[in-house]
Amino acid sequence: MKLLVVGTIAFDSVETPTASRENVMGGSATFFSYAASYFTPVNLVGVVGEDWPQENTEMFRSRNIDTAGLEVVAGEKTFSWRGKYLPNMNDRETLELNLNVFGSFNPELPESYKTTPFVFLANGMPEIQLRVLSQMREPKLVVADTMDIWITDHRESLLELLQQIDGLVLNDSEAKLLTGAENLVVAGRKVLEYGVRFCVIKKGEHGAMFFSSDDCPECLDCYVLPAYPTADVVDPTGAGDSFAGGMMGYLASLDATDLDSIKKALVYGTLVASYNVEDFSLDRMMQIERSDLDKRLEEFRCMMTLV
Amino acid sequence: MKLLVVGTIAFDSVETPTASRENVMGGSATFFSYAASYFTPVNLVGVVGEDWPQENTEMFRSRNIDTAGLEVVAGEKTFSWRGKYLPNMNDRETLELNLNVFGSFNPELPESYKTTPFVFLANGMPEIQLRVLSQMREPKLVVADTMDIWITDHRESLLELLQQIDGLVLNDSEAKLLTGAENLVVAGRKVLEYGVRFCVIKKGEHGAMFFSSDDCPECLDCYVLPAYPTADVVDPTGAGDSFAGGMMGYLASLDATDLDSIKKALVYGTLVASYNVEDFSLDRMMQIERSDLDKRLEEFRCMMTLV
Repeated sequence: MKLLVVGTIAFDSVETPTASRENVMGGSATFFSYAASYFTPVNLVGVVGEDWPQENTEMFRSRNIDTAGLEVVAGEKTFSWRGKYLPNMNDRETLELNLNVFGSFNPELPESYKTTPFVFLANGMPEIQLRVLSQMREPKLVVADTMDIWITDHRESLLELLQQIDGLVLNDSEAKLLTGAENLVVAGRKVLEYGVRFCVIKKGEHGAMFFSSDDCPECLDCYVLPAYPTADVVDPTGAGDSFAGGMMGYLASLDATDLDSIKKALVYGTLVASYNVEDFSLDRMMQIERSDLDKRLEEFRCMMTLV
Repeated sequence: MKLLVVGTIAFDSVETPTASRENVMGGSATFFSYAASYFTPVNLVGVVGEDWPQENTEMFRSRNIDTAGLEVVAGEKTFSWRGKYLPNMNDRETLELNLNVFGSFNPELPESYKTTPFVFLANGMPEIQLRVLSQMREPKLVVADTMDIWITDHRESLLELLQQIDGLVLNDSEAKLLTGAENLVVAGRKVLEYGVRFCVIKKGEHGAMFFSSDDCPECLDCYVLPAYPTADVVDPTGAGDSFAGGMMGYLASLDATDLDSIKKALVYGTLVASYNVEDFSLDRMMQIERSDLDKRLEEFRCMMTLV
């Protein structure tokens, strides 16, 4: 099944304690689309300026990522971000942010996109996420991401969005901010009360937690997944979006929304993210194939098996 | 099989954002012993002052914790600690520390203890850990804990200890300090180079990582275990020692030191710790039995099962 994503497409400049890159491909929709493309075709919705190289668009197409929804604004610049990671490689500082074309982004979906069954609303203003959603015709599964600024300054629209979607993906500090709970188990359960069927709390190198209002009598209502232990963390930028891309891509490929499929999808998300952090931008993901993910899945499965 | 532990026995005064307790039972050997006592008899080595209530000692005995190695020093006071947890319930500040009798602790093991097959050297000065170890006759499995002050100020003795023991248990910041590595996978592997057969890095609410030099061809050399997701974290004091107690207690009960048993032992450690944090001191652990741990094990197993 096809998977639609709306989000940022950006030029990233990234500094880590040991290396740096200038103006490499980034943005939530970029990482998400590439990660999902191991599993399923993607309908990409985003905006770039005239500085966006045509070869980047060609690269998307070569991965079965449809760019009919990629708007190119003449005379303007692509969204750009500059950030610096602290030595722990988990915390980062934003040094510069230029919204550029993204500042007035108000997507009109191509007609062919409107029936896409799986939808991911990457981190963005909730009003825009709602507007995109209003253009969709009976999607099967809608999941959104969000961030601190929308939680604090656009809370009402965000809560309206949560009434209309199936799942929310957010990181641990955002989950605490949204719910006011310091304990993540409490926070995850509170997110469900806002109206979503499930919630994924991302914890970076510590993995992810999954909360679901679906009954599974033998199980906890909370499922905790460690991250794949990689020794080679070069650049964590896009890890959360790659995670979401792997997860949603796998679900779309199965045309599934049940609990067991979501659990396995979380593992694929984890594995794609583990590759993503091993180099800057899309560089490491570009070196691997679905078979590499399945190899890592076997290692992960072995790790998770209790004797 | 019997399990020996040497460590602190203390009066703890604990402040959390929502509650506090004064002078409750604490100390590494206390938490460890109680946690291990669900699984196996324990030989306790420690020291207290004359302010230590006899009923606490009776409580140990009622749990099959041998107190022949518990020295009571007349005219002196028991070790005491006062600490305060930050709202995240993970970070804490030490407000007061009185070594008292522990300052001159130099344990002479009772003859009956010297052949105990399983040994845990709880966090303490490496010179004392070495001295205890030198009194043991051919132990089967020796595991130690350590902390920042020994890593920085007693490094040589600590490295000597690592040559003589089987496993090291330490927390994430200590592992980084010991090895100089920021990435925990790298840090865990480096610990093995110091001479231990395995290493457990504890990550508090994020679970634990296990590194082993034993070959397991299908598996990673790193095994990551999430914590049991408890919504009810009242006081994390002693979580690490309860974890170690559950782990070592389970291994001693099986008389096992193989990799598969250690993996399962890590899960029992995780589960005992998950109960320990649900109240102050030993209060929550005192309410449960082995069967409660096995019930939580089933939930944990269900959580870990990939479809």
